[in-house]
Amino acid sequence: MIRDIAHLSSVELYTPVLDDTVAFFRDLMAMEVVDRRGDSVYLHAWDDYELFTVKVTGHHTSGVGRTWLRASSEEALARRVALLEAEGLGEGWSEDEPAYGPVFHFTDFDGHKFGLYWHTHRYTPGPEQRPSLKNQAARFPGRGANIRRLDHVNFLASQIPPQDRFLAELLGARKSEQIMLDDGSLAAVWFTVTDKSYDLVYTSDWTGSRGRLHHAAFATDTREDILRAADVFLEAGIFIETGPHKHAIQQTFFLYVWEPGGNRIELCNAGARLLLAPDHEVITWTQAERAKGQAWGLKTIETFHTHGTPPVDASPSGGLD
Amino acid sequence: MIRDIAHLSSVELYTPVLDDTVAFFRDLMAMEVVDRRGDSVYLHAWDDYELFTVKVTGHHTSGVGRTWLRASSEEALARRVALLEAEGLGEGWSEDEPAYGPVFHFTDFDGHKFGLYWHTHRYTPGPEQRPSLKNQAARFPGRGANIRRLDHVNFLASQIPPQDRFLAELLGARKSEQIMLDDGSLAAVWFTVTDKSYDLVYTSDWTGSRGRLHHAAFATDTREDILRAADVFLEAGIFIETGPHKHAIQQTFFLYVWEPGGNRIELCNAGARLLLAPDHEVITWTQAERAKGQAWGLKTIETFHTHGTPPVDASPSGGLD
Amino acid sequence: MIRDIAHLSSVELYTPVLDDTVAFFRDLMAMEVVDRRGDSVYLHAWDDYELFTVKVTGHHTSGVGRTWLRASSEEALARRVALLEAEGLGEGWSEDEPAYGPVFHFTDFDGHKFGLYWHTHRYTPGPEQRPSLKNQAARFPGRGANIRRLDHVNFLASQIPPQDRFLAELLGARKSEQIMLDDGSLAAVWFTVTDKSYDLVYTSDWTGSRGRLHHAAFATDTREDILRAADVFLEAGIFIETGPHKHAIQQTFFLYVWEPGGNRIELCNAGARLLLAPDHEVITWTQAERAKGQAWGLKTIETFHTHGTPPVDASPSGGLD
Amino acid sequence: MIRDIAHLSSVELYTPVLDDTVAFFRDLMAMEVVDRRGDSVYLHAWDDYELFTVKVTGHHTSGVGRTWLRASSEEALARRVALLEAEGLGEGWSEDEPAYGPVFHFTDFDGHKFGLYWHTHRYTPGPEQRPSLKNQAARFPGRGANIRRLDHVNFLASQIPPQDRFLAELLGARKSEQIMLDDGSLAAVWFTVTDKSYDLVYTSDWTGSRGRLHHAAFATDTREDILRAADVFLEAGIFIETGPHKHAIQQTFFLYVWEPGGNRIELCNAGARLLLAPDHEVITWTQAERAKGQAWGLKTIETFHTHGTPPVDASPSGGLD
Repeated sequence: MIRDIAHLSSVELYTPVLDDTVAFFRDLMAMEVVDRRGDSVYLHAWDDYELFTVKVTGHHTSGVGRTWLRASSEEALARRVALLEAEGLGEGWSEDEPAYGPVFHFTDFDGHKFGLYWHTHRYTPGPEQRPSLKNQAARFPGRGANIRRLDHVNFLASQIPPQDRFLAELLGARKSEQIMLDDGSLAAVWFTVTDKSYDLVYTSDWTGSRGRLHHAAFATDTREDILRAADVFLEAGIFIETGPHKHAIQQTFFLYVWEPGGNRIELCNAGARLLLAPDHEVITWTQAERAKGQAWGLKTIETFHTHGTPPVDASPSGGLD
Repeated sequence: MIRDIAHLSSVELYTPVLDDTVAFFRDLMAMEVVDRRGDSVYLHAWDDYELFTVKVTGHHTSGVGRTWLRASSEEALARRVALLEAEGLGEGWSEDEPAYGPVFHFTDFDGHKFGLYWHTHRYTPGPEQRPSLKNQAARFPGRGANIRRLDHVNFLASQIPPQDRFLAELLGARKSEQIMLDDGSLAAVWFTVTDKSYDLVYTSDWTGSRGRLHHAAFATDTREDILRAADVFLEAGIFIETGPHKHAIQQTFFLYVWEPGGNRIELCNAGARLLLAPDHEVITWTQAERAKGQAWGLKTIETFHTHGTPPVDASPSGGLD
Repeated sequence: MIRDIAHLSSVELYTPVLDDTVAFFRDLMAMEVVDRRGDSVYLHAWDDYELFTVKVTGHHTSGVGRTWLRASSEEALARRVALLEAEGLGEGWSEDEPAYGPVFHFTDFDGHKFGLYWHTHRYTPGPEQRPSLKNQAARFPGRGANIRRLDHVNFLASQIPPQDRFLAELLGARKSEQIMLDDGSLAAVWFTVTDKSYDLVYTSDWTGSRGRLHHAAFATDTREDILRAADVFLEAGIFIETGPHKHAIQQTFFLYVWEPGGNRIELCNAGARLLLAPDHEVITWTQAERAKGQAWGLKTIETFHTHGTPPVDASPSGGLD
Repeated sequence: MIRDIAHLSSVELYTPVLDDTVAFFRDLMAMEVVDRRGDSVYLHAWDDYELFTVKVTGHHTSGVGRTWLRASSEEALARRVALLEAEGLGEGWSEDEPAYGPVFHFTDFDGHKFGLYWHTHRYTPGPEQRPSLKNQAARFPGRGANIRRLDHVNFLASQIPPQDRFLAELLGARKSEQIMLDDGSLAAVWFTVTDKSYDLVYTSDWTGSRGRLHHAAFATDTREDILRAADVFLEAGIFIETGPHKHAIQQTFFLYVWEPGGNRIELCNAGARLLLAPDHEVITWTQAERAKGQAWGLKTIETFHTHGTPPVDASPSGGLD
């Protein structure tokens, strides 16, 4: 089993209210501000061995910027770069992010921006962030949602099949679950590059737009962290969209909120769930099964099918944004 | 990154009180008895995609029998078999376990028995075990410790360095943490073949014996499952050796009990902890650090250094068995 | 502060499917069947110091039978009996329940049946139920929802004001929270006879019927017990109506299911919440506040306003039963 | 059932390091500093309806100052004052604490200082502390140990029998559990004035000293809060003395730490445990039962029998202080 992509590393979020979004990640999600460059603020989650977990960039609207992936070796990086360039998705090398060595820029077929790299810099805590246990990146914050790490990014895409091929062939990711509509078309696909059951997800964009975000998800250590976070968000006036509840698909315990910039953020906990079978058989959910809602009976909230970022005008197809 | 070993699959435990040990795994650990063959009973944990998780075998004493590992492909299997045979550790192929296809038998340098295979049979639930969610192997039992899967095996070994090389070179496992004594010798090594931070562990055997077991560990979904299990074991008269507490090494939340046959069983929960860095740097704990005890200050229990299975006479070196 | 009612003791539920309802309480709620008399089965929750917690009675339909309360002394009993008789609500003394000494039977103004007594019999565990810790009534079951005790009963009533007076004046209960509609009428009242923030609740019956049940609620030790119970109910095919979530009113963490006989059952957890102020000021929720739904944003489920037991024909006012 | 004492209200702790102790309660226990007067700082826990929960007073050493109790009515206050004065324990009325109306000062037979009052002032949150749910005193802090309220105070006393009579007769508290040594003497007594199973505890002082403190205990909402707190204390360099574990006596889930001033602080969680029986029979634990340690097998830590505050010289009897 060859894994050329080691893991999802970090994601850039756009926000029209930079300070508020930074405060959300710092005060409520318990991340540390580690750098500021131009209109961007970099934040670090306590279990991340690299320099940053989220890059928040001031922008005229919300949405997702670049998503970074780490290759599992120098050779793995070269292999994937060759495939991406052959496909015409490459955009060249960049050294703009001091957190990483040379980063290969590319896009998926829907225009979402990615960066792939091998060389990285390890997070080294200052005195205030030095943990008591040396097998831990930073000090355990013990506040708010107490986020441990970035978990996955769920993109909206105008078409799913090209993205399905992008993940499987160009990145070498493995598909774990999918939704197939009655007409045989794919509505959503979940892929993993690790032993987690998913890291990257594409959901069909009801507006037909390209390059949008459904949500970015962050892992807590326990379900109780998510319950506590719900009270924390309630007190802070953060809009809780839905949850806490358990997804039928992937079985994740979840809470969805909208950060002040408008991007949907998931807090998720998978318990001890891992996908260890090297020959995992893809789980396919039907249209009828999707319509049943979440694991314990919660109906999928309407805005789940109408709110993406950045917002677009979607009058004919019924979107609310 | 090449991973030839996909995961730890199952472990065989010897017991002088077969029925009691089976009852322990079935009633308290919430496993299902799926097969009986000769003096052996096979039990399945609800999240295991293969046919069995533990094989319990009636024996004149306690201890560990064979440990099974799944290769990540046919080629991976061939690669590892060649290396093991070259080292003289091979013992030939077996088809004795109907749960698996052909299994290559071998030992480590300390005499512990292993089986490696590629072909397997998937668990198919009967009507009583059919789960409501189709992305789950068996029905969620919701009783006792409610064990999700086998997590790791911690072997005792007469010498650590050969085992260190066995795991690193012959199995291609990655070392995540270790204890190094002041004289430079290794007292324990933790290796992973997955994204979990450890799957296979060797601890130095204070009696100098070969082939013994320190403990087999099973993962619960939550820490609360472990707290609930403590009450369940208390009521059932199961000896709780130590815990619940959190290890400094590996940071696992743990509870140790002795199953009726005498083998030490760990219930463990890692929260969302994963070891995702492809170039993870080994964490080395010193003798002084080990002496500090567990993460929240609990002193390591004396029997942790005196109880292994099978018991051996260890008078000069101070063991209690 | 005089408390004549010591606590809510037990409740009788009617069911058209006796065996299924008993199995629900025994296998999923983790109660013990302690007696059978005529068409009734008595079940005991592990923390109940008295003989039974729920009496399940076979009946042509669902609904609530008698609710038992324990007086805090012989004198307290006499005081309350005098008040109830003066009000014409008394129905005389009964010795029909061997679990209790003489029980005074009476009704509220809506026809719900009650029993009040002082003398009781303590639960004495048999060998199978003997707990390891002697400050506990019965063995910790560690299965399913693992219910600790009866928590409260929420009655539907054709009119709230008389019930408000019944609880406050005739039983000496203290009101903790209430919903007052814009026209000044009470839609629901929560009363306590203990330090818990509520034990007895009346909600306005949208059908105008008398004597019906909204739900009976049982306390778990932890919120995690409720999350685990959700999976247990999912596997058992029990209808989960709504939750898990947190009420704004009373702040209870909840899960609502319908037992096989149709009665709504709440699993609830209040954390460490207690109402300790002897001069607690009643919290009044407005119509607008109620419309906002639950604490973390979940909309109140439609059936909450249409499903009561026994079902009644309620076509003009829009009920679903 | 008459309850003249409504509840334990607050406790004063002495500390030689005022700022550090205040930081402990504010930053780690999640209390709010609400007042400063002279050498004293007042802190408020989020679920306390009164003005303060802990008063921390700078002093040359550690220990306990006054403990405040609220009477359940004006009449209850008068009744208890009469009894205390008749016993010669009264010290007159005081209006020194602006948080309360007139407070009657008295001591127990061991010299611990108490205050009893009826009139009180309710906590009114400022804009920063205003909760989202109006049935809550202050904003949910969601940080550190996130303490909900003061739970109980455990005093050391030179002799137990007088204290037993003090609680039972002079305060009208009910005894729930006790430890009786083989010679028939009482080693510890647990009393409640509420539905909690204990509020005030006396343990025999091994040094024969008068007026010392074993620990003050604060309730968290969940056991998970205590597990999270353990990591928070680890990071903050707070000495964790023992736990987390579950007491056999009273079954409390606990964690003991020493605040920077040296006083032992317990974080405790009782789950849904309440003592509802009006005729509860006292549970008596024997010397042998006490020697067995805690519920899940943890041995009682040696310092539990040697560390009290203020420290005293106790060489002959073996104390460590």
